Amino acid sequence: MLRAIQSYILYDLKRIYVRVDADTARSLVIGLLRQRKASQDNARSQADLLIEAELRGHPSHGLQRLPRLLARVDRGLVDPRTTGVATWVADSSLDVDGMKGFGPAVALAALQQLETRISIAGIAMATIHNSNHLGMLAPYVEKIAEWGCVGIAISSSEALVHPHGGTHALLGTNPIAIAVPTAERPMVLDLATSIVSMGKIHHYAASGIQIPQGWARDAKGRPTINAVDAKSGAIAPFGGAKGYGLGLALELLVAALAGTDLAPDMRGTLDSEFVCNKGDVLIAIRARPEAGLSKRLSEYLDVVRHSPHAEPDQPIAIPGDRATARRTQALKNGFEVDAALWTELKSLSRQSVLEGHNS
Amino acid sequence: MLRAIQSYILYDLKRIYVRVDADTARSLVIGLLRQRKASQDNARSQADLLIEAELRGHPSHGLQRLPRLLARVDRGLVDPRTTGVATWVADSSLDVDGMKGFGPAVALAALQQLETRISIAGIAMATIHNSNHLGMLAPYVEKIAEWGCVGIAISSSEALVHPHGGTHALLGTNPIAIAVPTAERPMVLDLATSIVSMGKIHHYAASGIQIPQGWARDAKGRPTINAVDAKSGAIAPFGGAKGYGLGLALELLVAALAGTDLAPDMRGTLDSEFVCNKGDVLIAIRARPEAGLSKRLSEYLDVVRHSPHAEPDQPIAIPGDRATARRTQALKNGFEVDAALWTELKSLSRQSVLEGHNS
Repeated sequence: MLRAIQSYILYDLKRIYVRVDADTARSLVIGLLRQRKASQDNARSQADLLIEAELRGHPSHGLQRLPRLLARVDRGLVDPRTTGVATWVADSSLDVDGMKGFGPAVALAALQQLETRISIAGIAMATIHNSNHLGMLAPYVEKIAEWGCVGIAISSSEALVHPHGGTHALLGTNPIAIAVPTAERPMVLDLATSIVSMGKIHHYAASGIQIPQGWARDAKGRPTINAVDAKSGAIAPFGGAKGYGLGLALELLVAALAGTDLAPDMRGTLDSEFVCNKGDVLIAIRARPEAGLSKRLSEYLDVVRHSPHAEPDQPIAIPGDRATARRTQALKNGFEVDAALWTELKSLSRQSVLEGHNS
Repeated sequence: MLRAIQSYILYDLKRIYVRVDADTARSLVIGLLRQRKASQDNARSQADLLIEAELRGHPSHGLQRLPRLLARVDRGLVDPRTTGVATWVADSSLDVDGMKGFGPAVALAALQQLETRISIAGIAMATIHNSNHLGMLAPYVEKIAEWGCVGIAISSSEALVHPHGGTHALLGTNPIAIAVPTAERPMVLDLATSIVSMGKIHHYAASGIQIPQGWARDAKGRPTINAVDAKSGAIAPFGGAKGYGLGLALELLVAALAGTDLAPDMRGTLDSEFVCNKGDVLIAIRARPEAGLSKRLSEYLDVVRHSPHAEPDQPIAIPGDRATARRTQALKNGFEVDAALWTELKSLSRQSVLEGHNS
């Protein structure tokens, strides 16, 4: 099942990477999830989300999340068979109890429900609680854009971000994704409201590299450029007071709509100890059908894309452009995975077989 | 009708301000609009929005917009009598042709429609085209929060912002406001996706003060700290690539939903020459009714508000806190208006009477 590792690369100071292809990685993930009684569909959608993150160059939302997810399944904190229970609590509002299911399995089932309602309602929303980490948000809003709709996805998360002017972690990284369909592929924004991800801080720490000033504070709230100290501290919000305001508004919005907890009480996305109590909000809005509108959007994006840039070698990027380019490359050439992680996953796979997980 | 000016204050290098009270200013505005055949309700709601901006310390959205608005009415670019025509194009989606009406008059009429649908739909949206400038977005989402709903408002606007890494204005300032009801007053975020407003650049220019590095570029796309040069150039997006991405996503979102133009083709909010072709999106989402939820949100905001801060004299601010404090003060003590502007408005008022506008 597992194809041979293609190459070893010394990528930075301390880490060794292996290059794997998407199908190999996907098969490995599906196998590990199936061994834990995940349905074929659930294993597939969870694997797809992890692999998509790798393909797009966001390993913090990729395979490195898998060992923890498996441990959570083994401890009964995740139910790999369910897609949750969805109830229309109002004409255009779907309440989803994730029943401790995989984030992607629950969210994709919710999207199927939204799709049935969107042409009548014009706008429809699913709020999700008692579900696990969705992974990257971009694929969900891209799915909504396939229906000719604007997609919005917002998740709450554990306290990692300090308020603007503050010193201690009180906000989640509270990501938001927005997709707008155009005549070509949709424009897809997917951003955390922190200045950087905690995954990147961990990466700097593992690589023995200092982080830039202004990124983080240590556990005592002091500014730090030591990545190891930052891991137990707090990350700055992006964009100063405005980014902080946006993150805080999304924090409250998710809690008010999904009924879920606030960052300081949030558990279950970064540990293997607790049921996950974050929330997600998915909104689909039908775009106007006017002839020429989607073409007008594409043309505008091209104007921006090809507009003058301040640095000769740095052309203007449209959100999603770089991820799409990386994905195209990675589908052809594979992507790099931390060698120790890859070895761990293969070992888990063999171990599961020996332990008879594959029932 | 007009009470005496209370005091003259030398506020900065070149400008002289007068202190006026809200009722005086409101009466003046209503009078000027009524003289131009605005209905009582329309004059009132337009005046309220301008005065609210002054009370909250955002003069860029206050009285300084009035002379242009009056000129637009006089030229037939604004119809002061209409509240637009609203049509439910789907169960939860209201399409509003503003019929060239005042922004606040059209938007408030749309909100009345949304309110009738929200308890059945759970989520409902109004998209507005062919309407004029809404002013500050905060008051609209606050109105939605009064229904126990999360409110979201997004507007598109004329090209004033350069892409991240770009040099020329291609994006609007594309503001977004979000209100979340709590057990106390709602948390209200209201931000433009530019690093600063063009109004503030104009203020620096009029005051002969340099702007900070990184705020703006001149008409040729070169970085500048000269506020006068920046007026004909481009403002930076807030928060680098992320803020730019958000602004661009909102730009496309409004166009895709309201069918309105994109920033480079946008006219009619900063001139007295063209019909206004920007768009607005208003979304109301019913918050969950769980007992204790809104109290939990208030308590969390208090935790953030009173959390440790990096600078001794700069406590943590919750979005809306400062505006609320300024409003309370200004309701008591009045607010400052540029003396030349105030004189112009009073002169316009007398002139209109002489010209028999008051028919």
